[in-house]
Amino acid sequence: MRKEVELFDVLQETLDKLDGDGILLVAGDPPNPMTIGWGTIGYIWNRKIMTVMVRPVRHTFSLMESVKDFSVCVLPDHYKKQLNFCGTRSGRNINKLESCNLSVEKCIKVESFFIPESTIHIECRTVHKHYVDPSTLDPGIINRYYPKKDFHQVYYGEILGIYKKI
Amino acid sequence: MRKEVELFDVLQETLDKLDGDGILLVAGDPPNPMTIGWGTIGYIWNRKIMTVMVRPVRHTFSLMESVKDFSVCVLPDHYKKQLNFCGTRSGRNINKLESCNLSVEKCIKVESFFIPESTIHIECRTVHKHYVDPSTLDPGIINRYYPKKDFHQVYYGEILGIYKKI
Repeated sequence: MRKEVELFDVLQETLDKLDGDGILLVAGDPPNPMTIGWGTIGYIWNRKIMTVMVRPVRHTFSLMESVKDFSVCVLPDHYKKQLNFCGTRSGRNINKLESCNLSVEKCIKVESFFIPESTIHIECRTVHKHYVDPSTLDPGIINRYYPKKDFHQVYYGEILGIYKKI
Repeated sequence: MRKEVELFDVLQETLDKLDGDGILLVAGDPPNPMTIGWGTIGYIWNRKIMTVMVRPVRHTFSLMESVKDFSVCVLPDHYKKQLNFCGTRSGRNINKLESCNLSVEKCIKVESFFIPESTIHIECRTVHKHYVDPSTLDPGIINRYYPKKDFHQVYYGEILGIYKKI
């Protein structure tokens, strides 16, 4: 069972997990999960916004470019192994959900899917996107994270629903 | 007196005020405060990041373009009038700090200044910036917030210090 909650009910846990073992970005139909460790949450355009980042080389990139929404799913602590798997393997070659024994359900407010094993999931509609621009990016960051020049696309998701497992 | 604290010690209050009466973005030397209501906080490039947005027409835009860092300052509840003033008047014509009877002190980790009347202040170094791109922005948002096509510059600030008044 899941219950719709407020942003501040999940904000700290979501950012804490993002900066820890990661959280799952789920996009596409059939849905594919990718582990992410970078993103932000706040308010823009008088909407709640969550930003997520995807490199163009990723299978999730082609999925994100072909759909209008996505979900982010926060898994319990004991899913460390699955989070590592979904962050290092590509959905092009394997069904990551099956491999990790994770299930999916249709989102409530958007077309994407979420993972019911998650303790929190956030449903977002993409309202803006842009590539990280090397001409205005700190040179230290370019050297450290973009030796292949594969700059992320940043997706701005309008948060339409926030749900907690009860 | 101020004390350095962790992100989660100030995260909720900062976003709550941002979405409420606003918080102050302070940039330039001499420093100028501008009230902002939009921004996000999270983790990118394994750093704590706060994004803030400034329209090119603003005096703060020319300040942000000419410096490498800024602070955001969260004022107590009874500063509603000053926040309204700093969000509607331009620092081009007046000294907003004097008009609002607010003081300033040098930041600890960056070159900018902060407002010691604030309960929280966050010191950031700009590591990336980009303009909101109308070609990938939701048409409803363009119509509602950009009738003059004055699209914001988004500044990505690496959070170098977080301080609370004690």
